[in-house]
Amino acid sequence: MGLQLYDLTGAEPERRFSPYCWRIKLALMHKGLKFDTIPWRFTDKDAIAFSGQGRVPVLVDGDHVVFDSWTIATYLEDAYADRPSLFRGEGGRAVTRFVNAWADGILVGGILRLIVTDIFAHLDTKDRAYFRETREKRFGVKLETVTADRETNVLAFRKALEPIRIILAAQPYFGGEAPAYADYAVFSCFQLARCMSSFPLLLEDDPVWAWRDRLLSTFDGFARNALGYQV
Amino acid sequence: MGLQLYDLTGAEPERRFSPYCWRIKLALMHKGLKFDTIPWRFTDKDAIAFSGQGRVPVLVDGDHVVFDSWTIATYLEDAYADRPSLFRGEGGRAVTRFVNAWADGILVGGILRLIVTDIFAHLDTKDRAYFRETREKRFGVKLETVTADRETNVLAFRKALEPIRIILAAQPYFGGEAPAYADYAVFSCFQLARCMSSFPLLLEDDPVWAWRDRLLSTFDGFARNALGYQV
Repeated sequence: MGLQLYDLTGAEPERRFSPYCWRIKLALMHKGLKFDTIPWRFTDKDAIAFSGQGRVPVLVDGDHVVFDSWTIATYLEDAYADRPSLFRGEGGRAVTRFVNAWADGILVGGILRLIVTDIFAHLDTKDRAYFRETREKRFGVKLETVTADRETNVLAFRKALEPIRIILAAQPYFGGEAPAYADYAVFSCFQLARCMSSFPLLLEDDPVWAWRDRLLSTFDGFARNALGYQV
Repeated sequence: MGLQLYDLTGAEPERRFSPYCWRIKLALMHKGLKFDTIPWRFTDKDAIAFSGQGRVPVLVDGDHVVFDSWTIATYLEDAYADRPSLFRGEGGRAVTRFVNAWADGILVGGILRLIVTDIFAHLDTKDRAYFRETREKRFGVKLETVTADRETNVLAFRKALEPIRIILAAQPYFGGEAPAYADYAVFSCFQLARCMSSFPLLLEDDPVWAWRDRLLSTFDGFARNALGYQV
């Protein structure tokens, strides 16, 4: 039996939008591992209770059950050490953890503020109350209030991407000449938006757009072919 | 002849505050290389004209003249490959470039907005007009206006450090179990503040404070012993 990944989805089973699942799917492709995904929704807590917690991604690899995207990435790197490296060395692994944290805190946070209502609209009806309640608690206001000023807020968001532009002026990927897990950690946040929202997060003349476009094409267009919007 | 580093200073020759020079001094210590610093001020353009440009750090290593902190760091890594690595592998080198860009853009930018008037006050009189003119052009307002709301702005600055806290919850340094160039790139920004300003950038119960404190102690307290403030 191959690897299995529990993968967050919206109303349609193929609307796979979790940035944490995306980075693992790309890591699995990077390692050249065959895997199946199992569509999962926020309220399907019972389906992953065997993992001892309630969030995806959850990876099942034979007898191994691994959750939390960073833990899964390091598991894959170590369990499949003979395959292409996600980090290219211990220094890469240590420092990629910062990129991962920056993506989770700054990027996911910033993107949610711009498109959280679009995410809500794409959820299965059974997930909507859960999503609204947990996210409104986090933001402290209604979802509709969060995105109300997004035409203005996107300007600050694009400015916060400046460190990406600096690195891309010197090298085509975070990983250097080829993509590495640091690329997938950041790319996956933009993929969340692309799957769920027609709101134009990036402008076409932005080097970040060009980098994202290269990653959309990686692995025979694996991410480009996902159900989503052409933005 | 050992290595020589042109090192930015304020009114006192020992007030060494450039974050770009600090990360190179720590990289030189990391490599175990002996070096002398040559105090340099913004308007001493003639003194480094031999490098073909007008900014520090400039490193002179025998016949080699190297400028730009990232270029110097990679030069040291390659020229002294038998000594402790600054990046621990090619993956580390590639991804550290992002940390470096984040430090330059987000941290230095954020710190200048909080303490630029304190920097001005510590400059040699001959540097002040140059500094005020170039920085006011960049900010678009008077230096005194930039720092006027710093008691409020520091709260947002501390929030922007969240990715550092996430990585420090898992490992003691950006480099993992020991400091690497990614640590020096980030630490050097806080050292700029510590050398020039009594304004409390960090709170003592912040994990970022504890990490900075470990780096202040590294290399027998090399950075802690620098002329500056106990903040």
